[in-house]
Amino acid sequence: MSATRTITVELGERSYPIVIGSGLLGGDFNLAEYVSGSDCLVVTNETVAPLFLDAVIVNLSGKNVESICLPDGEKFKTVATVESIFDRLVSAGANRDATIVALGGGVVGDIAGFAAACYMRGINFIQVPTTLLAQVDSAVGGKTGVNHAKGKNLIGAFHQPQIVLIDTDTLERLPDRELKAGLAEVIKYGAIADVEFFAWLEDNIEALISREPEALATAILRSCELKAEIVSADERETGRRAILNFGHTFGHAIENCEGYGEWLHGEAVAAGMVMATALSGIAVDDEDRLRALIEQAGLPVAPPHIDSDKFLTAMSMDKKVTNNQLRFVLINELGSAFVTSNYDEELLGQILKSAG
Amino acid sequence: MSATRTITVELGERSYPIVIGSGLLGGDFNLAEYVSGSDCLVVTNETVAPLFLDAVIVNLSGKNVESICLPDGEKFKTVATVESIFDRLVSAGANRDATIVALGGGVVGDIAGFAAACYMRGINFIQVPTTLLAQVDSAVGGKTGVNHAKGKNLIGAFHQPQIVLIDTDTLERLPDRELKAGLAEVIKYGAIADVEFFAWLEDNIEALISREPEALATAILRSCELKAEIVSADERETGRRAILNFGHTFGHAIENCEGYGEWLHGEAVAAGMVMATALSGIAVDDEDRLRALIEQAGLPVAPPHIDSDKFLTAMSMDKKVTNNQLRFVLINELGSAFVTSNYDEELLGQILKSAG
Repeated sequence: MSATRTITVELGERSYPIVIGSGLLGGDFNLAEYVSGSDCLVVTNETVAPLFLDAVIVNLSGKNVESICLPDGEKFKTVATVESIFDRLVSAGANRDATIVALGGGVVGDIAGFAAACYMRGINFIQVPTTLLAQVDSAVGGKTGVNHAKGKNLIGAFHQPQIVLIDTDTLERLPDRELKAGLAEVIKYGAIADVEFFAWLEDNIEALISREPEALATAILRSCELKAEIVSADERETGRRAILNFGHTFGHAIENCEGYGEWLHGEAVAAGMVMATALSGIAVDDEDRLRALIEQAGLPVAPPHIDSDKFLTAMSMDKKVTNNQLRFVLINELGSAFVTSNYDEELLGQILKSAG
Repeated sequence: MSATRTITVELGERSYPIVIGSGLLGGDFNLAEYVSGSDCLVVTNETVAPLFLDAVIVNLSGKNVESICLPDGEKFKTVATVESIFDRLVSAGANRDATIVALGGGVVGDIAGFAAACYMRGINFIQVPTTLLAQVDSAVGGKTGVNHAKGKNLIGAFHQPQIVLIDTDTLERLPDRELKAGLAEVIKYGAIADVEFFAWLEDNIEALISREPEALATAILRSCELKAEIVSADERETGRRAILNFGHTFGHAIENCEGYGEWLHGEAVAAGMVMATALSGIAVDDEDRLRALIEQAGLPVAPPHIDSDKFLTAMSMDKKVTNNQLRFVLINELGSAFVTSNYDEELLGQILKSAG
């Protein structure tokens, strides 16, 4: 896939394109077209800015562009950081027609998107994700937010971007550990919604880890297609969209118990998917295939040591809990997931104990 | 109007009722019906709690009700106060099916609504306004938010409530100054959208100031009808809804320059309406009628002394500014308003200078 490809997230008048290609940043792609007013604030971080900020400014030429550089890391995904963006917008005299451009990984996108959702009750927003995880998952679908000390993404908003611009070349600069963390979400799509894609991943996992551009582009494209389809059908996660949280109830608890940033989100989700699969009680063959693929991707297949009561308490703060009843995304078989609060409590206890 | 009346804000699947009547709080009205889960957090303040908190808990019987009492005043309408509500929700183990009940005036409603908009990306929300200003204006229409040091309501969200419950008896306990401040918004509806209502207000201003229940109920009902109609047609203020900001560009600047809370919002809007009318260049008779009614309501007809450059800078942070061009809500004649960025700059200069 060397050509630029476009997928549309169909959400009526809030529909937007995901543009995927090589050589887009700093190239001819006219991102300024997606900026309705004249003022842009690029929100990025200290790691990403030296790599891509100048390039994005080229894509925005003709606009009045300022930038704010956040410290790097999940631990800065807080209300205080969002307030620093508000301060910058106010001191720049930004009005309702200003646009925020998120340049970076999932943390930058979540923070910047939440700032865009709340500044003057909502301004325009563009996602330029530079990590695999953000490209295949967090930049698509309009979930924005920050962490509370007691739980991940507890404070946030749904706010759809005007465009998601994915330059696959950015992955050349991504650290190995983050590339692998992104693969966790790619594997997730296969596990919950597309067994053929899962089989393709089994055949191409080596190519993905060694960053073959064609393989990465195919994985990103298919992941975005699957996510766009699920989000279009259920924007606000009142139903089916929740299957995207496969592995996440366990994963969020791992991140929360270990302290945000110790385990990368994708790593926690990887271990979480193995735990959720164990709770699903599916055919041993499918369970083995998922575990093997996660292992081949260089991702953890077990959580760190966490006391099982502490694990359970952390899970009870998950947003999927309703009426004080835990809910899990489980799979029937590879490629087919469902959400349920009807699970085997004894089995859950065993899974948590074996982690503790 | 002794019977309970219901107006519907028509917003498709987000439609909701405004219920207006006497003896509703602490009475038979089943507010619990509007709570989908079991957990409620009543957000109120130290002034309102002693008067009405016990009564509202009666209306919520059968639910698991907690409350948080904020300090009273516009200066606490900050992100930090919203964070204190998040902390309380988290420590109560509140999930996505929890409901926030705002019990108080506009400040409590704006803060509590914004917390509801952002907690877990949006939970249910009920408005129980206890001031005239909140009953006729801020509790209806889904605008929520907090102030930034540099501008009013700069941080917020649109988040519609499940119901607005207005017990007109609460006004018996409202301080005179706040009753009058609420009348500013009532007068606004007449001035921008209903000249017959304006004439009714001229005939009944004494009855309103002396709190005759029938007169107050009629004023609240008609104000809510007009607001519901305008909001239904333009929920997110992309067009006509902006006329509701008549007097507010000037008014917000007054509040900002004086320090939030020194001038009550309604007082600042009253002076702002006189300024906006002067800028409108309408027939002298209409201008005189508006000024006279505001004066009879015991409200200020001129701003405090503010340097005109400072006034202009404060106005430029208004959310209605687009492409760095100030926009004003002006009136053609009583009962008919429009939004424009095409105004007489020299006249604006004179109006601001006469204030300075």
